[in-house]
Amino acid sequence: MTKRVREILGWYDSVSPGVRTNLARMLNHGRLGGTGHMVILPVDQGFEHGPARSFAINPPGYNPLYHFQLAIDAKLNAYAAPLGFLEGGAAEFAGEIPLILKLNNHDMLSDEPDPLPSVTGSVRDALRLGCSAVGYTIYPGSLKSHTMYEELREISAEAKANGLAVVVWSYPRGSGISKEGETSLDVVAYAAQIAAQLGAHVIKVKLPSAHLEQPDARKVYEATKVPRETLAERVRHVVQSSFDGRRIVIFSGGPRDTDESLFAEVQSIKDGGGFGSIIGRNSFQRPHDAAVAMLNKIIDIYAG
Amino acid sequence: MTKRVREILGWYDSVSPGVRTNLARMLNHGRLGGTGHMVILPVDQGFEHGPARSFAINPPGYNPLYHFQLAIDAKLNAYAAPLGFLEGGAAEFAGEIPLILKLNNHDMLSDEPDPLPSVTGSVRDALRLGCSAVGYTIYPGSLKSHTMYEELREISAEAKANGLAVVVWSYPRGSGISKEGETSLDVVAYAAQIAAQLGAHVIKVKLPSAHLEQPDARKVYEATKVPRETLAERVRHVVQSSFDGRRIVIFSGGPRDTDESLFAEVQSIKDGGGFGSIIGRNSFQRPHDAAVAMLNKIIDIYAG
Amino acid sequence: MTKRVREILGWYDSVSPGVRTNLARMLNHGRLGGTGHMVILPVDQGFEHGPARSFAINPPGYNPLYHFQLAIDAKLNAYAAPLGFLEGGAAEFAGEIPLILKLNNHDMLSDEPDPLPSVTGSVRDALRLGCSAVGYTIYPGSLKSHTMYEELREISAEAKANGLAVVVWSYPRGSGISKEGETSLDVVAYAAQIAAQLGAHVIKVKLPSAHLEQPDARKVYEATKVPRETLAERVRHVVQSSFDGRRIVIFSGGPRDTDESLFAEVQSIKDGGGFGSIIGRNSFQRPHDAAVAMLNKIIDIYAG
Amino acid sequence: MTKRVREILGWYDSVSPGVRTNLARMLNHGRLGGTGHMVILPVDQGFEHGPARSFAINPPGYNPLYHFQLAIDAKLNAYAAPLGFLEGGAAEFAGEIPLILKLNNHDMLSDEPDPLPSVTGSVRDALRLGCSAVGYTIYPGSLKSHTMYEELREISAEAKANGLAVVVWSYPRGSGISKEGETSLDVVAYAAQIAAQLGAHVIKVKLPSAHLEQPDARKVYEATKVPRETLAERVRHVVQSSFDGRRIVIFSGGPRDTDESLFAEVQSIKDGGGFGSIIGRNSFQRPHDAAVAMLNKIIDIYAG
Amino acid sequence: MTKRVREILGWYDSVSPGVRTNLARMLNHGRLGGTGHMVILPVDQGFEHGPARSFAINPPGYNPLYHFQLAIDAKLNAYAAPLGFLEGGAAEFAGEIPLILKLNNHDMLSDEPDPLPSVTGSVRDALRLGCSAVGYTIYPGSLKSHTMYEELREISAEAKANGLAVVVWSYPRGSGISKEGETSLDVVAYAAQIAAQLGAHVIKVKLPSAHLEQPDARKVYEATKVPRETLAERVRHVVQSSFDGRRIVIFSGGPRDTDESLFAEVQSIKDGGGFGSIIGRNSFQRPHDAAVAMLNKIIDIYAG
Repeated sequence: MTKRVREILGWYDSVSPGVRTNLARMLNHGRLGGTGHMVILPVDQGFEHGPARSFAINPPGYNPLYHFQLAIDAKLNAYAAPLGFLEGGAAEFAGEIPLILKLNNHDMLSDEPDPLPSVTGSVRDALRLGCSAVGYTIYPGSLKSHTMYEELREISAEAKANGLAVVVWSYPRGSGISKEGETSLDVVAYAAQIAAQLGAHVIKVKLPSAHLEQPDARKVYEATKVPRETLAERVRHVVQSSFDGRRIVIFSGGPRDTDESLFAEVQSIKDGGGFGSIIGRNSFQRPHDAAVAMLNKIIDIYAG
Repeated sequence: MTKRVREILGWYDSVSPGVRTNLARMLNHGRLGGTGHMVILPVDQGFEHGPARSFAINPPGYNPLYHFQLAIDAKLNAYAAPLGFLEGGAAEFAGEIPLILKLNNHDMLSDEPDPLPSVTGSVRDALRLGCSAVGYTIYPGSLKSHTMYEELREISAEAKANGLAVVVWSYPRGSGISKEGETSLDVVAYAAQIAAQLGAHVIKVKLPSAHLEQPDARKVYEATKVPRETLAERVRHVVQSSFDGRRIVIFSGGPRDTDESLFAEVQSIKDGGGFGSIIGRNSFQRPHDAAVAMLNKIIDIYAG
Repeated sequence: MTKRVREILGWYDSVSPGVRTNLARMLNHGRLGGTGHMVILPVDQGFEHGPARSFAINPPGYNPLYHFQLAIDAKLNAYAAPLGFLEGGAAEFAGEIPLILKLNNHDMLSDEPDPLPSVTGSVRDALRLGCSAVGYTIYPGSLKSHTMYEELREISAEAKANGLAVVVWSYPRGSGISKEGETSLDVVAYAAQIAAQLGAHVIKVKLPSAHLEQPDARKVYEATKVPRETLAERVRHVVQSSFDGRRIVIFSGGPRDTDESLFAEVQSIKDGGGFGSIIGRNSFQRPHDAAVAMLNKIIDIYAG
Repeated sequence: MTKRVREILGWYDSVSPGVRTNLARMLNHGRLGGTGHMVILPVDQGFEHGPARSFAINPPGYNPLYHFQLAIDAKLNAYAAPLGFLEGGAAEFAGEIPLILKLNNHDMLSDEPDPLPSVTGSVRDALRLGCSAVGYTIYPGSLKSHTMYEELREISAEAKANGLAVVVWSYPRGSGISKEGETSLDVVAYAAQIAAQLGAHVIKVKLPSAHLEQPDARKVYEATKVPRETLAERVRHVVQSSFDGRRIVIFSGGPRDTDESLFAEVQSIKDGGGFGSIIGRNSFQRPHDAAVAMLNKIIDIYAG
Repeated sequence: MTKRVREILGWYDSVSPGVRTNLARMLNHGRLGGTGHMVILPVDQGFEHGPARSFAINPPGYNPLYHFQLAIDAKLNAYAAPLGFLEGGAAEFAGEIPLILKLNNHDMLSDEPDPLPSVTGSVRDALRLGCSAVGYTIYPGSLKSHTMYEELREISAEAKANGLAVVVWSYPRGSGISKEGETSLDVVAYAAQIAAQLGAHVIKVKLPSAHLEQPDARKVYEATKVPRETLAERVRHVVQSSFDGRRIVIFSGGPRDTDESLFAEVQSIKDGGGFGSIIGRNSFQRPHDAAVAMLNKIIDIYAG
């Protein structure tokens, strides 16, 4: 166990050794094992966006085994997916890479301004499949955030009682927030704080822009001169907003980045004190070897 | 055990020794221990207002450990916060200060005229974290007050069965009440009464203005000449409205007071027979030593 | 056990001995014990109307102990109140007077045409506090009466399984009924019938006026010449509408009667075969000794 | 409520108002109501000894209604019996006298040196039948006392949660105790202590002889000179052994006393600070009027 | 929080903050608060030995309130007793001293070579009464130790889930062990180890003699020259056997020591690294002031 991982686990003193064990499994796996940095492969787009939008561009991705193998080959820290995808390979790859069972998911077949994802798996499923963590998505800003927060409370209590870590995807969305606001610095920082207050062990947010959405928050940001010009500065603020860096926060980028901009983003995450990246479409929507090469460069940046 | 604390505990004869033990733990802790007065530090603003609005002005406050230490250094009676913040330090500070787990919380990301906070923790969490009490917020006047009252009933029954005290934040709010009405004397007194009738052991309300909101109430206040010119008189009326002073009632002030006006408020709370103060932003939004000094002066007033 | 009480209990042959025991406890207590008449003190106005409107005119009433003592001093049959007020004195006055825990309550802070009271206590609370009965309010005529009837069904089933009597406050109210209609003879009689059909053991209604609200009902009242000129005749009709007098029906008057008119009302209730009175504001809104004197006169009328 | 009853209820501060209410119901009923003394009629001999041995000598006793009426006519504090006998009259006599449901019973058809009574009723039955208390028999000294103590623990927890008082018959018996030892002073005092430590609210033991059974105890009794010559002295020691008199202890005598010796025993119970008598066979095995006359004399002694 | 208490709590990192809070409550209470040493008053002898053997020599001890007051007056760390004794004073002394509910107890009325104590209280009772810990006795060496270990497992799991500490009385006894063996060094060390392995947070054993009971153990003790001549050396070995001192181990002496030998024993416990004493009969079997004086001297030794 490296000093850095030990330090990180120390932030989770109030939870059981089981949760700390599973956090350690993720932190110690893959090429970034022991550094305190993490790169995770999430593949829930089949459910969220539909299969063709997700996999037609790189058809091996239709196969659930493909993503296990990709995460293993790229020596990532963990692989996250909904029930079906994990059941599609958990036996074959048992023990090869830490798994995160994504417990709620939302499809695009009905259009709602304030969507509510469905709970599609359980803590019991996660234990049965040998997962290290459960994942859950909340939409702060949605009129249905109430339901999501309370579902998360139940799931989180059960996960912790069973020694599983809790990873929260915190995506601002809903009728109260503008499109630009969804990635505004104040809203992303707020979303990270909410996930932390709800008891998340690992928090996943989008990279924030310099935009400020809420008038009352804008006043404070300007008065206190919170640095937000560079991406690294904004990452630093989100990390700070996650209990002063005492919760693991990882970031996703947008779907359409060039590799160069992607690597620059990763460098900024690292420079800003972020803990890592969660990279879905950018990984599995290119050919296997190209994906592994790209992920290796990202790992190089974090390990550098 | 002082005579005064024994007298106060005597008002709670119908509840179990466990609840009385936890009330005693709070009443006997800190510099005000034994006086029957209480000063509590609440830090739920990260969830309620967002991280930057809460902590940017005094950045150490982003760290959950900071607030435990502040409450301990200022020798307060108790520290109240949501699940995440308590999990962020309960192990490190086990046994150092009575804790109150705030069980429901509400964020500012969706704008609702009749908001409903989410239940973000449980009685079981409070026991696991070593808390002395659970906290719960109701919004009398909200169209969703019905749901809050009934949730509180369930939580309160479970808390009492397990020996935990119940602290109720009673904040009038909602489509039926004007902004001015939220702190009007009649409405604040009513909010205190509702919390007491719902079985709260400790009631937290805002300091009332001399305004009267409800026409039917106004007639009675004027006919019976309820004194309400000075703040102390208004505090006295709220205390009276809490079972003639047989329930512990504590008060919060506004966020932007000068220290002098804050101290004057505290003196009025004391003069009016109030049991104490709950001081969040005024505490953690200034530097640690200044906050301790300010809290010490407040304690001096109550102890004087 | 008097013959009259035995006769009354005979109407409740289908319920368990526990329920009959608790009905007997109320029927046999106080100065009216054994007569088959009852006078009950209800104090839920603190919740329903606010503290000042309820207690400012006679400030000792802010104290929960006051009402227990008043009901005892006036030698009434029972005392009814919400959870907080009963918890405020149940230990001190254990065994001194039969208690009725009012299980749902409604505040006046949000204005709704079709209000739904909140469930603020449980059958388990009633057992824990040593109550003889639970009380529940329905608003026939409200668009939410459906919810109230079904909640009552659940509560009533649990109360009966545990040997507690069920007292139903049946108050017509809601968007479908005119203000005048709320106390019209046809509507009050209908409200009593509904409570009886829902399984109430004791029914509480307001004194009816001679007005007839519903056109279809009016036709029948006029065709069959139901006597309704005097208050006694109207009481007789409401009693008849409560299973031909085989359910205990008690009446409340308005809040502002002169004593003479109040006593005349009571005489009419007695003459019409009503079982008694439930007198809240008229009792606790005058000084203790005056209240006891007034209640004694009412008891004299029933006992005469 | 008399001062004495209030004093007694004060010893039970750690239990709910419901339990205190039911203790008050028993303490306040009948001719001894308010004195702090109790006389209870128990009729479990039909189960324990068989019907003819119990009732042939006074055949009306075969009828369950007889015993309710006897307890009422004699103005006793309570009537205790197994499920069948209570179901045989609870409806007819609802509300006329406090009832104690005897929850375990033992028959004489199988001969065991270490008997285990069967649980033949439930707390739920007691509530359904309108009882004020449950009764339970333990046999300290039996090899099966373990099972009885643990059953009592479960029953007692459920009874207390539902506001019922717990009456424990503590009868030393079993392979480890001589016949003489069953009523020896040291063993009876020990049996009372065990019942009190198990959480009993009312303890029922047999009148002790001056015999000392246990060698280790004998040494202490002799060294500390515990007075034990007169019956009153021995009663006093048993009461002292029941938490220094802070638990209600009542006594039964043997089956074959002359009335004079029975009255003398009662006088000794009173002189020794005992709280009352539980008199079964001596009551129902003589004609109704003779039984009432005899019980009246006993009540006269306690009331004197 | 002193450095020493913080160090001790650090050994319990795998348990919840609630358990650590309750350990801290005991470690921080009374005159030894903060030193890491503890003196506890246990009063279960009324159940275990009978009332006269326990209290006749100092009759105020028959009263449950006496022992609460004694523990408070002597400024001890905690008071431990069975359900009845705690219910006899928990309300009156709520919040004045940490309580330990002794969950199983055994009487002396039946003579068994391999006794099994009865479970006479529950974790729920402990929460209801405001206790900091539950206590449980095991008899390693009894043929029924299997049942005790498994009952402890259940109770311990429930206690930990609810934030209560677990104190285990580990008393070797049973058909497999000689009388001398019950306090032999090898057996006492073994008993401490078993309690620690069963998950106890605080272990209570008797002071060991230099005798070695088990032939196989004797060989090792002699071969490895475990120092065992002085009592301090033997205490040191027992502490070592309790996870190298990472579990709190406290000791009881015999019932008949002279004060000088008692103080010498305490000095040896301290010298050997023991954490404290649990002193029952030696405390409550002498007059109150003498007991307080004696306990004060013991505290002086530990604090010295």
